[in-house]
Amino acid sequence: MNRFLSRRNRLRELLSSEKGIVVFIGNVESAAQYRDNGYKWRQDSNWLYYFGIDEPRFAAVLDLESGAETVYADDFGIDDIIWMGPMPSVASLAAGAGVSSSAPYAGFGDAVRAALAAGRKVHFLPMSRWYNAVLLGGLLGVAPGELFSVGKKGCPLASEPLVRAVVQMRLVKDADEIALLDAAAELGYRMHTVARKGIRLGRVEQEIVGEMEGAVLAAGWGVSFATILTQHGEIFHCHSHEAQVEPGRLLLVDAGAESNAHYASDHTRTYPTTGKFSPRQRDIYQIVYECNELAFDMVRPGVPYRDCHLAAVRHMLDSLGQLGIVKGDVDEMVADGIGGLFMPHGLGHNMGLDVHDMEDLGENLVGYDDDQTRSPQLGLGSLRMARRLVPGNVITDEPGIYFIPALIAQWKAEGVDGGRVRYDKLEEYLDFGGIRLEDDVLVTPDGARRLGSRRLPIAPSDVEAAMAED
Amino acid sequence: MNRFLSRRNRLRELLSSEKGIVVFIGNVESAAQYRDNGYKWRQDSNWLYYFGIDEPRFAAVLDLESGAETVYADDFGIDDIIWMGPMPSVASLAAGAGVSSSAPYAGFGDAVRAALAAGRKVHFLPMSRWYNAVLLGGLLGVAPGELFSVGKKGCPLASEPLVRAVVQMRLVKDADEIALLDAAAELGYRMHTVARKGIRLGRVEQEIVGEMEGAVLAAGWGVSFATILTQHGEIFHCHSHEAQVEPGRLLLVDAGAESNAHYASDHTRTYPTTGKFSPRQRDIYQIVYECNELAFDMVRPGVPYRDCHLAAVRHMLDSLGQLGIVKGDVDEMVADGIGGLFMPHGLGHNMGLDVHDMEDLGENLVGYDDDQTRSPQLGLGSLRMARRLVPGNVITDEPGIYFIPALIAQWKAEGVDGGRVRYDKLEEYLDFGGIRLEDDVLVTPDGARRLGSRRLPIAPSDVEAAMAED
Repeated sequence: MNRFLSRRNRLRELLSSEKGIVVFIGNVESAAQYRDNGYKWRQDSNWLYYFGIDEPRFAAVLDLESGAETVYADDFGIDDIIWMGPMPSVASLAAGAGVSSSAPYAGFGDAVRAALAAGRKVHFLPMSRWYNAVLLGGLLGVAPGELFSVGKKGCPLASEPLVRAVVQMRLVKDADEIALLDAAAELGYRMHTVARKGIRLGRVEQEIVGEMEGAVLAAGWGVSFATILTQHGEIFHCHSHEAQVEPGRLLLVDAGAESNAHYASDHTRTYPTTGKFSPRQRDIYQIVYECNELAFDMVRPGVPYRDCHLAAVRHMLDSLGQLGIVKGDVDEMVADGIGGLFMPHGLGHNMGLDVHDMEDLGENLVGYDDDQTRSPQLGLGSLRMARRLVPGNVITDEPGIYFIPALIAQWKAEGVDGGRVRYDKLEEYLDFGGIRLEDDVLVTPDGARRLGSRRLPIAPSDVEAAMAED
Repeated sequence: MNRFLSRRNRLRELLSSEKGIVVFIGNVESAAQYRDNGYKWRQDSNWLYYFGIDEPRFAAVLDLESGAETVYADDFGIDDIIWMGPMPSVASLAAGAGVSSSAPYAGFGDAVRAALAAGRKVHFLPMSRWYNAVLLGGLLGVAPGELFSVGKKGCPLASEPLVRAVVQMRLVKDADEIALLDAAAELGYRMHTVARKGIRLGRVEQEIVGEMEGAVLAAGWGVSFATILTQHGEIFHCHSHEAQVEPGRLLLVDAGAESNAHYASDHTRTYPTTGKFSPRQRDIYQIVYECNELAFDMVRPGVPYRDCHLAAVRHMLDSLGQLGIVKGDVDEMVADGIGGLFMPHGLGHNMGLDVHDMEDLGENLVGYDDDQTRSPQLGLGSLRMARRLVPGNVITDEPGIYFIPALIAQWKAEGVDGGRVRYDKLEEYLDFGGIRLEDDVLVTPDGARRLGSRRLPIAPSDVEAAMAED
């Protein structure tokens, strides 16, 4: 059966106790400078998942009661053909998605208005882009800004049954998706290899970024998120690439590829700029590496990913204790959130069509089971994926240790560590930067495997050996 | 004096007969998949021109009566610093733009509301992005969709005096801008050279696109528009790159670089995939090349660029007549718009911070003098820049000849050519594709020069020689 039709049928089953209509709104082109000079075209991920039509300005209505499905879009006229070339008819694109009924784009608004006028429920997902929010907000009579997820809580106006059903489906990757994710991981491997080979003292970071992104563009859609390549690894989303590669630093490369089929990869490696770790760098690197391995070894169906996060943090604090940076009972430190000073982010997130899969649907509904509550602590509170794992989940495993001057100063001034942090020792690391090591992991029926056929060098000696060969 | 302050002072002079306030709204990050996974950050061009602050979520109000200027933005908190690193204070960024007063972002809305409540005029430019339109629309009480330029006419609700003043300024590039445009052209040269060297039979077009875009990303912001690299040159904005390079075809490469300073380049070259033009390809290529040269030779202050367009079209029709594809009086064919069948676009457009400079402000106000009216004809009607040239204008010179099967069929069926087209001959070219040749041109006090220090090979023999060496 058509892959998209069977997904919609499954969605309908999951929503069998609901009435009304479900609406899906594909993306339109997004302006970089102005309407006709757009960013690279990217379809909405939910649309791709349920319809697969990779063209702008499509929408669809599924009637939960009658079972009717209609795709709305406009066929090309002569001007469109001159500027953009011939396009298959909307009817044939819809047929490719297993939908037999299609109509002009304006019909979408008519259909939503008719449902509302008849007092029917209109199920929709939280919006991801402003144009879509303006369109739907106009139909529903609500401000566009109210149609997005707010922080981690999701969007109060969106249909929670629909969100839950979509999350349930997209969290578990099917065999087709796993093959596409493996292919994206191969692309990510190539991208990171270009990066590692490009590290030479004196180069401007941007030169390496260009080379690695070019390698992805040559074979895929592009990057799955803005490349992080920085000697300031302690800044999580550092997008400045103006610095020259300097001796004695660590270069953190957190980058992902998006394949032409729009599945993501997301890997992080951290390299000594001169090809050899200093003893101090190696000590910290070794801890992060062990946390990555330890978390991976725990991954199997039934284990809450939150437990993997906590186990990694526990090992990190234990090891930092041996370096004399923290002191005290390790379990108490974990419970009190001391790990947040060194790793103020979560161990990982879901990945699929989005690098943070379904983040727009609301992190708590995506990444938390109903019996889990989100921690208010720094670090654990940022954990995007806490759920009990099931086969087909795809998650990142990305522990890190960072020395963030502003955060250290704040903790010291506020005394929030309860005497566990040895600031005299810690302050020796204020110029260290940060280390993160990230792999993409598939939960299998009996454990886990990393995506892709090859793992980027990660053990400290393997990294040094690879850099010596480059 | 501060460059941005002097530009704002000049703007104020041009608006000296106006009252009220002028608002500028910088961009926010634009979602690719969801809010926190954005497209590459790109600031609004008008904001860059008048303030230069290359950070998201800034706005400003200029009071035309009191002379007061305030920049609105929020300083970073500890969470922002952890995720994005330290940022200079808003006050210091404002000072760098020559503005002494700054306030939190929410103050922008308060300032606009206060002006409206006092019955003052709020001057604003047409919007380019939906978020900005939602923000301003909310303050003004109008639907966001009404705040964009509609087609070529501009936005009826925006301030025409403000648009005219901005256009008057941005149309004439100052010495700093010319240096930045020359640098962007160098980047464009490098990008196109990578493309040409990458042409080999059997390669997938996307591989070449990735290499050339990587070269730009390594040294600049990225592409100034979505790269066109296609063996279907007859499709103007063909963004499909899935085809393999095949023998006997023409590969059209229309691509531009945006520098880190956000100035654009835009060049087109068309290559024989095997490195040698066939006689038929060479005939058509030679005509396009001559049109490009002829138009360039006409460029000087005082000449309406529309005249350059018409001269190029005249030469094209004359030459196509010699090939037996059209017949009849050339001047009559030009007047009747027969050129539109072969070149259904204009000769060129303004270029600067935007590749189609200020297209969002309304093409007619940007590209037409008050005593010029836009033609309804195909081709001439698409001419974006018709004005009498002045020194400091930067324009593209991009004639082309295309054989567009759908358009040829339409003209033949409708008989709109008045018997001038010899369809029997023309239909031999239905598999030809298209050729476009584009340079970036600066109008100088006594003529013109092409931007950048080197011209991409363009004469047919030079192209063949370069490809033989590659």
